[in-house]
Amino acid sequence: MPNQKAVLKVALIGHGFMGAAHSQGWRVAPRFFDLPLQPEMTLLVGRNATNVQAAAAKWGWAETSTDWRSAIERDDIDVVDIVTPGNSHAEIAIAALAAGKHVLCEKPLANTLEEAKAMAEAAQSAGNDIQAMVGFTYRRVPAATFARELVTSGVIGQVRQVRAAYLQDWLADANSPLTWRLQKEHAGTGALGDIGAHAVDLSQFITGQKIVGVSGVMETFVHERPLQDSPSQLGQVSVDDAAAFTAQFDGGALGTFEATRMATGRKNSLRIEVSGSKGAISFDLENYNSLGYYDATAPDTRQGFAQIMVTEPAHPYMSAWWPTGHTLGYEHGFVHQAKDFIDAIGAGQQPEPSFADGHQVQRVLDAVQKSAANNSTWATTI
Amino acid sequence: MPNQKAVLKVALIGHGFMGAAHSQGWRVAPRFFDLPLQPEMTLLVGRNATNVQAAAAKWGWAETSTDWRSAIERDDIDVVDIVTPGNSHAEIAIAALAAGKHVLCEKPLANTLEEAKAMAEAAQSAGNDIQAMVGFTYRRVPAATFARELVTSGVIGQVRQVRAAYLQDWLADANSPLTWRLQKEHAGTGALGDIGAHAVDLSQFITGQKIVGVSGVMETFVHERPLQDSPSQLGQVSVDDAAAFTAQFDGGALGTFEATRMATGRKNSLRIEVSGSKGAISFDLENYNSLGYYDATAPDTRQGFAQIMVTEPAHPYMSAWWPTGHTLGYEHGFVHQAKDFIDAIGAGQQPEPSFADGHQVQRVLDAVQKSAANNSTWATTI
Amino acid sequence: MPNQKAVLKVALIGHGFMGAAHSQGWRVAPRFFDLPLQPEMTLLVGRNATNVQAAAAKWGWAETSTDWRSAIERDDIDVVDIVTPGNSHAEIAIAALAAGKHVLCEKPLANTLEEAKAMAEAAQSAGNDIQAMVGFTYRRVPAATFARELVTSGVIGQVRQVRAAYLQDWLADANSPLTWRLQKEHAGTGALGDIGAHAVDLSQFITGQKIVGVSGVMETFVHERPLQDSPSQLGQVSVDDAAAFTAQFDGGALGTFEATRMATGRKNSLRIEVSGSKGAISFDLENYNSLGYYDATAPDTRQGFAQIMVTEPAHPYMSAWWPTGHTLGYEHGFVHQAKDFIDAIGAGQQPEPSFADGHQVQRVLDAVQKSAANNSTWATTI
Amino acid sequence: MPNQKAVLKVALIGHGFMGAAHSQGWRVAPRFFDLPLQPEMTLLVGRNATNVQAAAAKWGWAETSTDWRSAIERDDIDVVDIVTPGNSHAEIAIAALAAGKHVLCEKPLANTLEEAKAMAEAAQSAGNDIQAMVGFTYRRVPAATFARELVTSGVIGQVRQVRAAYLQDWLADANSPLTWRLQKEHAGTGALGDIGAHAVDLSQFITGQKIVGVSGVMETFVHERPLQDSPSQLGQVSVDDAAAFTAQFDGGALGTFEATRMATGRKNSLRIEVSGSKGAISFDLENYNSLGYYDATAPDTRQGFAQIMVTEPAHPYMSAWWPTGHTLGYEHGFVHQAKDFIDAIGAGQQPEPSFADGHQVQRVLDAVQKSAANNSTWATTI
Repeated sequence: MPNQKAVLKVALIGHGFMGAAHSQGWRVAPRFFDLPLQPEMTLLVGRNATNVQAAAAKWGWAETSTDWRSAIERDDIDVVDIVTPGNSHAEIAIAALAAGKHVLCEKPLANTLEEAKAMAEAAQSAGNDIQAMVGFTYRRVPAATFARELVTSGVIGQVRQVRAAYLQDWLADANSPLTWRLQKEHAGTGALGDIGAHAVDLSQFITGQKIVGVSGVMETFVHERPLQDSPSQLGQVSVDDAAAFTAQFDGGALGTFEATRMATGRKNSLRIEVSGSKGAISFDLENYNSLGYYDATAPDTRQGFAQIMVTEPAHPYMSAWWPTGHTLGYEHGFVHQAKDFIDAIGAGQQPEPSFADGHQVQRVLDAVQKSAANNSTWATTI
Repeated sequence: MPNQKAVLKVALIGHGFMGAAHSQGWRVAPRFFDLPLQPEMTLLVGRNATNVQAAAAKWGWAETSTDWRSAIERDDIDVVDIVTPGNSHAEIAIAALAAGKHVLCEKPLANTLEEAKAMAEAAQSAGNDIQAMVGFTYRRVPAATFARELVTSGVIGQVRQVRAAYLQDWLADANSPLTWRLQKEHAGTGALGDIGAHAVDLSQFITGQKIVGVSGVMETFVHERPLQDSPSQLGQVSVDDAAAFTAQFDGGALGTFEATRMATGRKNSLRIEVSGSKGAISFDLENYNSLGYYDATAPDTRQGFAQIMVTEPAHPYMSAWWPTGHTLGYEHGFVHQAKDFIDAIGAGQQPEPSFADGHQVQRVLDAVQKSAANNSTWATTI
Repeated sequence: MPNQKAVLKVALIGHGFMGAAHSQGWRVAPRFFDLPLQPEMTLLVGRNATNVQAAAAKWGWAETSTDWRSAIERDDIDVVDIVTPGNSHAEIAIAALAAGKHVLCEKPLANTLEEAKAMAEAAQSAGNDIQAMVGFTYRRVPAATFARELVTSGVIGQVRQVRAAYLQDWLADANSPLTWRLQKEHAGTGALGDIGAHAVDLSQFITGQKIVGVSGVMETFVHERPLQDSPSQLGQVSVDDAAAFTAQFDGGALGTFEATRMATGRKNSLRIEVSGSKGAISFDLENYNSLGYYDATAPDTRQGFAQIMVTEPAHPYMSAWWPTGHTLGYEHGFVHQAKDFIDAIGAGQQPEPSFADGHQVQRVLDAVQKSAANNSTWATTI
Repeated sequence: MPNQKAVLKVALIGHGFMGAAHSQGWRVAPRFFDLPLQPEMTLLVGRNATNVQAAAAKWGWAETSTDWRSAIERDDIDVVDIVTPGNSHAEIAIAALAAGKHVLCEKPLANTLEEAKAMAEAAQSAGNDIQAMVGFTYRRVPAATFARELVTSGVIGQVRQVRAAYLQDWLADANSPLTWRLQKEHAGTGALGDIGAHAVDLSQFITGQKIVGVSGVMETFVHERPLQDSPSQLGQVSVDDAAAFTAQFDGGALGTFEATRMATGRKNSLRIEVSGSKGAISFDLENYNSLGYYDATAPDTRQGFAQIMVTEPAHPYMSAWWPTGHTLGYEHGFVHQAKDFIDAIGAGQQPEPSFADGHQVQRVLDAVQKSAANNSTWATTI
């Protein structure tokens, strides 16, 4: 029975929107999956004592702290889960790994390539008994996981083309305020790092191929926005509203990518279509439970994109949930992430995506920036 | 802070598939919504001690019992939540109400009209301090709740037609076994009561109109199926595989209904389209986060069914969840149900759908059966 | 070469909207298909000389007449194509058949069962050298023809359910005028005969099964409308705005049908879904070039409704048209109808749908009316 | 009446697939539209006498010739319509213009920039009495024309992003033969010129903006294919299977483009989405009669992409055709092209797209090639 399992004490550093999602992951995973260890929501860390206590009470964390170092210093904490802004990831993660904690770190792994590299190295140095994982949760949407199964099993043949786009529209209104996400010093990049990172990771995950070169362009459409604290004044937007790039994969596939927060009417549309020599798959995150699959080996007159409802017991993760046809949603990726991380810890095996994987995604984004700054001239990711 | 709120102790009677869904509702609701009372998962009841203890451990119920009466006899239990088969609903619910417990009862309210009537009367007699609600959770899918808001606010004008269907296909395979759901003595009816009940409730909810008469037909396509315990032998199916009926609503609308577990390829497709004099709405449960809306008052050349992604903060329930475009799924209806029930208890107001509402749905289904047994001749629901 | 073929002289009786469609059929068919006979657009008949001459000049008919009898009296006319209102079909068609003309008659075959029966008998008496066909052109939409091929070849197994609806909305506006189509004395019925007839024919065509019994309801939502010639006055609507019925097919399938001109937002949506024991097909006329096909024999995880683009050379009629993926539209059904009728004449074989088929559809519609007038009590079609 | 109109004698040079489409345009346009001049299908030209006579007989051309010069030498020919391969366009068109003929020329205008430029100059020199037009027929799909009306009227506000792709899959099979379209010496480029040209023209047409710079990549996936005449031998593919590029429009919009004949499962999918500050439009040629429109100025909770059925009388071209909801298909673009060209001739006004427009599209494609050959470095189109 679950309550006889060894306990896995978790500390969560940060309590914004991602904190709510990760909390739901830790809370729900053991209620639906048979896990090797029983996670315990032990400690929530945030800078403001009042706020963090309120969040802990609401989400069900047993204790709170205002200093992330306390999580690392406590011997009883097994897992450090980092959902702070990107510029603090490296310091926390590296310290946690050094202290022998398993680390789950939200994407992007870091704001700079240097930090990402240091983190990947720290994870490598930590050895096989310590697990480190970066939070590309969209890999754990059942339709996406199943897409990978189809593609890597050879069902669609040789992968020739990938068209990937992450389209949102929450910045389409030119009067929305100048948040930290629109300032280069805090966010690094705009749409590229915020959501383009997901498109890169997911396309590489599904195809099993890595991007080796890119040609990019980045664009800002609204150059000034109202200051958050003083809306009558305008401040400068210093990141991209949209980024687009072509890419070469190491397996020979050609990719086209777009990341934008200005695609009016598209709310959270992460779309990936993979064209192969024997078939194709097509996914849109807004249609969470469905995967398009085209079988070019079927009889000529019966070929068509099948909309597979990815809710069968034999589909990834689904046997733990509801009967056929009963849908999942956004937060379930976080439940699956908690499950997979606990499974990896239980098995003593490195989970995916590793910090090295996170670092590689950063290298791709960095190459896009370099190319965009150099007349879109081709840039390699190595 | 939530932990300073008065506690609401819940006992859940039954631990099948619905038990998992209700448990998730009680568990998650207080983590996302601000509730007047703090629910506590106190007692899980099931007949088999081993099984109920395993379920309680997995789902997080504090105690267990093998007798539902213990839940009613305990003074500290505030809410009795019933997810047992329909033939036991009346006895448990009436006893719980008599003991002053708030009662949430899964649909269908009962297997017979007489029991449903007795339950509605018991809820009535219990007085305003005791709340009773029947579990038509699909009302709490945000897209469905929003559909009601649109229709009852007059946006689509006079409602003229309702086309409703609940399509599943898990019985399409003639070799699937003869479960209790296929036997009249246990299930009452087949597709009609199992899923047709949802189509009836939801269409009445969205339109704000009640069905007053029907003409029905019920059909069984696979008459014999393998016995569960002895698959080499066949047993008789004694319920409907599919039911279809036309209906008249009290506001003048004409309805067409279908409920089937033989609609090959349709997994959990509860579809409702409402045609009005000024517009229309269209919903399919398989497309959980979306609502079709047609505005016949827009300029002629710009009219079309808009697919609204029902994930804006201003949409029902959504401000508690994720940013725009981030989807919910099947289980969220149960979270919203728990929230709404706790809100009603906190406010001392009767929730909807009431036991009387549940009884009225049963009268509609009963009229369909009567009509089907009488050459489809029109039958009233009163 | 086509110009060496024997010529087939056609007379078209009537020149409304259907006249334009039939003209396009005769004009275009020989330009894309290899036909055994070369059709010639010889004579256009209409009551008003000025109007019919204008129509003939526009559409390319060589001669005109104001009396349909002249078409029958002329020895050189081979084919009489009737697109007049339904109440004149019987007289013209019977006379034409008696004169040894091949007859193509628009649907509905007639306004009364008696006339339809007389026409079917006249076609029967005319013998095998004279061909008679009724104009259910939607059978000749490639996706619909291909649907029949799939279903009757056994690909979806035993047909269990048919859900058919013909949804339009051009009467949703209560201020649209009281045309002859809304008056019983001219139109017989409303939505039922106008568009429901198509749903009946197409569902029987696709399944290869005939309807043997029905339970119906007919409804009028707008009882008074402005007179066409005197819009300030209101006149009585005496036909149905919407009709719905359940049906039994002779092969055991259960059908649900709806015909309405009040389905706000649905423009010309003739939808048919057929659920079988091994698969399903799904068609919507608004999505002309596409057919949904679900293969329940595919591997569990890969099942989904495939949207087949019915534009491959191996699809019905398509080898005569454009490359893969290039679409057809409404009028192509009339081109295919002309082709099929000319092929039948050339081969000396009776075409489908025959006048007997048209008569059978009328019997189904008549049974719906009888049932609707008798408390929806079941009515047989024989 | 049409037959009293002045006659416009047309000569068609070429009789492949495009010849059938253009013939249908000339044949049908006067039957549905009121035109200022009556087109006459006078002369069909092809190299092989037997073939051209068979085509003329089938399509209804009065006379034939094996030399295109005969069309230009005949005084009675008013219009020369060119559907030969691209490398012969310049010679024929320039000669025809010099002889005072109106010229309609299929896209691409020419195979080389030099020829395209010479043609544009010839059209310019011909003066205002002589009309010249290039055959980008997709502009005349009603949904596309209406998209332009919406965008250029300001309904979607400032255009920020364009995502355009033309996806086909007829080369996905590596065993399909090495036709002239796969050889650089005959075709110039592959997917880029063949179908990418349409994406460029249509995106510029809809937005009213011109592309001023690009960064491109071109890829060949199948390098060798069976020779057409000797399938056991393989020959070299010397053009692109797929091309992708980012683009800058002169109005400030950012574009992403893809053209491929390897997108398995996509048959003829020319997709354009335009994101603006106040709304968006979305079109896919495979869904010919529909246009997606998102209105970001609607109430927050009611925003969604509306699928407008572009079949209302008030939609472009539609009043000439069928009732609401009755669809058009691929060939109707050619009918509309013939209509628009005849209208322009009748009015003595230069039609669009002009040869200068065709030349500008070639400049864009040329810039893509230059960029692709230069490490994707940005290239201007001027």
